[in-house]
Amino acid sequence: MKKLNYGMVGGGPGSFIGDAHRKSINIDAMATLVAGCFSRTLEKCQQTGAELGVDPARCYASFEEMAKAEAAREDGIDFAVVVTPNVSHYAACKAFLEAGIHVSCDKPLCLTVEQAEDLVRLADEKGLLFLVTYTYMGHVTAKHIRKFIADGKLGKVRTVMAEYPQGWLAYEGEWGGTQGAWRCDPAQSGGVNCLGDLGTHVENAVATLTGLKVKRVLAKMDIVVPGRVLDDNDVILVEYEGGATGCYWTSQFAIGHDNDLRVRIYGEDGSILWKQEECEKVTMISREGTIIERHRGNGGIEDCAAAYGRLPSGHTEGWLESMGNLYKSFITCLNAKKDGTFTPDMIDFPTVHDGAEGVKFVHACLKSNANGNVWVDL
Amino acid sequence: MKKLNYGMVGGGPGSFIGDAHRKSINIDAMATLVAGCFSRTLEKCQQTGAELGVDPARCYASFEEMAKAEAAREDGIDFAVVVTPNVSHYAACKAFLEAGIHVSCDKPLCLTVEQAEDLVRLADEKGLLFLVTYTYMGHVTAKHIRKFIADGKLGKVRTVMAEYPQGWLAYEGEWGGTQGAWRCDPAQSGGVNCLGDLGTHVENAVATLTGLKVKRVLAKMDIVVPGRVLDDNDVILVEYEGGATGCYWTSQFAIGHDNDLRVRIYGEDGSILWKQEECEKVTMISREGTIIERHRGNGGIEDCAAAYGRLPSGHTEGWLESMGNLYKSFITCLNAKKDGTFTPDMIDFPTVHDGAEGVKFVHACLKSNANGNVWVDL
Amino acid sequence: MKKLNYGMVGGGPGSFIGDAHRKSINIDAMATLVAGCFSRTLEKCQQTGAELGVDPARCYASFEEMAKAEAAREDGIDFAVVVTPNVSHYAACKAFLEAGIHVSCDKPLCLTVEQAEDLVRLADEKGLLFLVTYTYMGHVTAKHIRKFIADGKLGKVRTVMAEYPQGWLAYEGEWGGTQGAWRCDPAQSGGVNCLGDLGTHVENAVATLTGLKVKRVLAKMDIVVPGRVLDDNDVILVEYEGGATGCYWTSQFAIGHDNDLRVRIYGEDGSILWKQEECEKVTMISREGTIIERHRGNGGIEDCAAAYGRLPSGHTEGWLESMGNLYKSFITCLNAKKDGTFTPDMIDFPTVHDGAEGVKFVHACLKSNANGNVWVDL
Amino acid sequence: MKKLNYGMVGGGPGSFIGDAHRKSINIDAMATLVAGCFSRTLEKCQQTGAELGVDPARCYASFEEMAKAEAAREDGIDFAVVVTPNVSHYAACKAFLEAGIHVSCDKPLCLTVEQAEDLVRLADEKGLLFLVTYTYMGHVTAKHIRKFIADGKLGKVRTVMAEYPQGWLAYEGEWGGTQGAWRCDPAQSGGVNCLGDLGTHVENAVATLTGLKVKRVLAKMDIVVPGRVLDDNDVILVEYEGGATGCYWTSQFAIGHDNDLRVRIYGEDGSILWKQEECEKVTMISREGTIIERHRGNGGIEDCAAAYGRLPSGHTEGWLESMGNLYKSFITCLNAKKDGTFTPDMIDFPTVHDGAEGVKFVHACLKSNANGNVWVDL
Repeated sequence: MKKLNYGMVGGGPGSFIGDAHRKSINIDAMATLVAGCFSRTLEKCQQTGAELGVDPARCYASFEEMAKAEAAREDGIDFAVVVTPNVSHYAACKAFLEAGIHVSCDKPLCLTVEQAEDLVRLADEKGLLFLVTYTYMGHVTAKHIRKFIADGKLGKVRTVMAEYPQGWLAYEGEWGGTQGAWRCDPAQSGGVNCLGDLGTHVENAVATLTGLKVKRVLAKMDIVVPGRVLDDNDVILVEYEGGATGCYWTSQFAIGHDNDLRVRIYGEDGSILWKQEECEKVTMISREGTIIERHRGNGGIEDCAAAYGRLPSGHTEGWLESMGNLYKSFITCLNAKKDGTFTPDMIDFPTVHDGAEGVKFVHACLKSNANGNVWVDL
Repeated sequence: MKKLNYGMVGGGPGSFIGDAHRKSINIDAMATLVAGCFSRTLEKCQQTGAELGVDPARCYASFEEMAKAEAAREDGIDFAVVVTPNVSHYAACKAFLEAGIHVSCDKPLCLTVEQAEDLVRLADEKGLLFLVTYTYMGHVTAKHIRKFIADGKLGKVRTVMAEYPQGWLAYEGEWGGTQGAWRCDPAQSGGVNCLGDLGTHVENAVATLTGLKVKRVLAKMDIVVPGRVLDDNDVILVEYEGGATGCYWTSQFAIGHDNDLRVRIYGEDGSILWKQEECEKVTMISREGTIIERHRGNGGIEDCAAAYGRLPSGHTEGWLESMGNLYKSFITCLNAKKDGTFTPDMIDFPTVHDGAEGVKFVHACLKSNANGNVWVDL
Repeated sequence: MKKLNYGMVGGGPGSFIGDAHRKSINIDAMATLVAGCFSRTLEKCQQTGAELGVDPARCYASFEEMAKAEAAREDGIDFAVVVTPNVSHYAACKAFLEAGIHVSCDKPLCLTVEQAEDLVRLADEKGLLFLVTYTYMGHVTAKHIRKFIADGKLGKVRTVMAEYPQGWLAYEGEWGGTQGAWRCDPAQSGGVNCLGDLGTHVENAVATLTGLKVKRVLAKMDIVVPGRVLDDNDVILVEYEGGATGCYWTSQFAIGHDNDLRVRIYGEDGSILWKQEECEKVTMISREGTIIERHRGNGGIEDCAAAYGRLPSGHTEGWLESMGNLYKSFITCLNAKKDGTFTPDMIDFPTVHDGAEGVKFVHACLKSNANGNVWVDL
Repeated sequence: MKKLNYGMVGGGPGSFIGDAHRKSINIDAMATLVAGCFSRTLEKCQQTGAELGVDPARCYASFEEMAKAEAAREDGIDFAVVVTPNVSHYAACKAFLEAGIHVSCDKPLCLTVEQAEDLVRLADEKGLLFLVTYTYMGHVTAKHIRKFIADGKLGKVRTVMAEYPQGWLAYEGEWGGTQGAWRCDPAQSGGVNCLGDLGTHVENAVATLTGLKVKRVLAKMDIVVPGRVLDDNDVILVEYEGGATGCYWTSQFAIGHDNDLRVRIYGEDGSILWKQEECEKVTMISREGTIIERHRGNGGIEDCAAAYGRLPSGHTEGWLESMGNLYKSFITCLNAKKDGTFTPDMIDFPTVHDGAEGVKFVHACLKSNANGNVWVDL
């Protein structure tokens, strides 16, 4: 596979997610960082660039400039990684799409349904690949579950219980630091906090694992920690097309939960329990009640999922590998685009379409909550 | 402590709960079974009586007869244990109360709010003790949590996530046997199945552990397994007086869950996680994020809770001991009544008042569900 | 089944194990306590007797007197329960056997191999039943494993890792109380502490679960906590007949372990992991590496084991039920003796023969350790 | 920090460990692979080189040639990574040391005590840094434990139970593939299999975490799986200087264990339990018996350990990050060497001295086993 070149928007000093994207891409050494607009001033941007070995000439003061300049270079970037605060996702992604450059954007995709639909339209029209980095669906075990259920091995899904509690924002001011500050600030995160940050992961995880489509939601979004202006605890009742039901919970003050995304899926022929913090295993209960635990790297994992593993079982792969798996498929597809061998069924990563589903979900929830916790169709 | 005498209504062949009550009472040998109306015919009743060493003269064909006859004896029973299907609870309890006999009744207390209020009134008027056997709150760890929170050590409770999934009724007909049959039959269980059987335990557990009072509920009660006519999967949104929120889930088709009552309580100063299937431990997370696990029998358990332990730590106490703890307090109070030393603060068991709260909760949920999942005040 | 009568030697105030035996027998109400020699003075003995509802005339000042008197009564006890400190086991058991009374004795059976062989001889000659209460082998899951392995489903056993650490005696004086005092006192416990108290459970558990017979041992028995004169940490290498190997560890200062008997069995066709503190489940790994967890009360448990369950799965049965299961088989056999229907294959409890194996094991270990950790044949 | 250049010996097609080293180094992008002798023929070597982006001119047919050539280049490699089968470690390491090039070598360091002492001597004489990649000690939690114990917070260590079972070689031929083949082949692995592969990790983990020095060992090394000629199940009794004791177990046929290195340390003031498969957490039990679980990324982790974390808590770091942490310190020290700022206390990775301890440990065990499981001084 040809090693590609990429540029990054965001990811300056203090950015957790930018550094994490870079490390994830590094693991398999499939792409090199060659350009960036890491911060809002050229000086700070070049400083970060210097630390990362990026040519100062390819450090840009704005993403608009970067998109144009890179599109004009013969050796311009193959794709752009957008890891700014949520409020800038739309404009940055749009700039690269319009310049004909493939995009990887962190979730949530953008702030409004209109923005989301615009990005979908642009990517589709231009024939560009668009990865939305719902990290957790890159796990081998997540891919295993998706295939297992898609093959009908769990029977019809009856109900889904999914949750994503964290505890790091249990106190205003004291905890959270920079990361907490922008998430709780409407100006940077959009008009939603916890549900945008965590709830979109839940929505995507359930959709990805089960293939279910949300029909309508009833949301209760609460602002609990004193001093907050945006939601920090949300419970969502869900009805899916076909009759299955679900319940999602996200929280930012659930002390004791680090990053506790869990999905429990109950079908006619058994159940599946999955927990991202213990993502090396999956628990499957058969119709007869036998509890079976399978580990990444051992037998019994679906081949298409197992293929993503790098290490033998018991040699823990974690968050970076999971993100790396998204990039592995994305970069494989980009290479195939170059070779002319690309076909859409090669896509094994969340796309702009999935990102748009997340935005629609959030907005239906906001509406339900605003109207007194009533059902709202998606 | 004086050994008391008791009689039982229900608990004939095939009854799980009747045998379980008897075994629980046996452990500490604080009461002897001396009378019963175990089945609906005298012959079957005497057959069970013979197996249990009960004098045939004190085996009765009806609970009305039993109440009268025992009340008339000088050596009549000290208390009656009612373990029939739900539909008969009210009449049986009423008969004994009217006869001036203390009562222990399995949950749910009865079918309607009117019945519940009637039993409360009767017990209060007659000054009789009335135990409703919400078994799980007898656990040492449950008593520990209640004291811990009541003392303010968790700060103000912010949200509660509680659930009680089971999987044994995942298929109609195949699973469940007699136990399943009556629960799913409106004629025997009243107009509610899963929420009455499991949801009332959740309601009582949260109320007992946190001291919170339910203000209003929004319930989604679903009938999922083909062939069922009553609810078998319920999600309830809860608002408590004082502003805290909660979410309860119960299910009977969640394959892989045996009897999985769990309560997670998130407060300002930490969290508590409790799971009845691992009731020998309690997990407490402090404000600083340190995860602390305490075991029954070890240091750090509140004294008033630890006093109920019978065995050293690591020598598992389970369901029967938990039920036995309810009876231990109940019988202690009955003895105190006899001695004239009884005071209400001695009561350390769920009473008819708690049972009535459960019935009100169920009816508010039924109303919410019938009206399209809207908020209903309690 | 006819309810039997029993007497107890030991079990006075402060005795954990005497009370535990009584509670275990109570659960299923299969025998009534009618006689006892609970303490060393008649006065204290009658005091305990009064609390337990035992006729003062059947409270005895010595077990010799008790054995003679009860043997002479037409309504004499059906069996005697010996729960004194270890040093008195032999004499007490011998007295009842000689009087023709069946015996249940706590482990370890006695202090010397000669004593053990004498008790075996006596019981066999007299045709008396003799239960040695290795409690943990009463668990349903333990019985399941024994049957599973006996049926060859694990293939040939290759190695066994078993351990039983506790932490309650980590400090001299401070911890342990009366229970600790007699165990650490050579005059009361015999010349061995940790290995006698815990190591015999490990030996019996492995022998029971796997059917393996110990060929030789290499023991390292250490005295670690300052002030101790007997072993408090032991590691034993084991070779079994047929070539399998094992390693046993017991400790009394392993802080954090309550009562942590675990056995891990590795066979040609899979592995089994069992932990008495979580005795409601058993983990079995098949040849293909699939990890399977089975719960008491669910399908997949061997019928002969499942039959001992009293409650549905998820309604925890613990230590008392396990001990109760030993008594259930013992009392069933005693009843069969009375009926003339007894056959030796009905015995489903550890006997005096198993107890004697434990004593031989301890003495081989003591010899190995005394000689510098060399191999000693059993 | 300046990005360095490295070369690799071994790590051709089918090599697990070579690829793992490369990925680990990639994560933090602190060094670039620029030279290699990946296989035994130049052709195969260049083929791998091409895939890895290495200049064909710097692909070598032998490590001797590579050492000389790279030492002669102005832009020669900063360090060499040796990841061949064990039998070649000594000669390869020696070649680079003699050429004045720093070395990273996978464990076990080499085959004989003489070889080990030679490498120690060479590295010390030349003033070269020498990393031996005992991966697991790179974990943040491992570093935390080391500091915690070194600071005396656990009191004097009393006993250590450590184990490293795997199950992947439970059957000859069927399982294991290439990786299994060379480990079980005396010609490639040296005269030891399981103890060299896994036992050295156990020895190093205990030494690193506790600071204890082994005084003598008593080893039982068994050959169990039919067809094997080298040990596949080992139990080692250990006495440390200062009086503490230990017991180590390693196995390759323990079905159900993937890569299950665990260390349990029992001190006067508490216990520590650590399990590399769940390396994001550490369990610490205080003198009072409180069980405390701490997670990487949360408070309560020693600062010098926490500094190695890359992601927030709950965003799992695994095996590659752990190995990466070793390289982070190694490369930091190499940079300091260049800058002239290096001091020996900067070394926070296992060195050739630690590697030599491992070789001595293995040889003492081999001698103990050969002489009938007797004590052998180190």
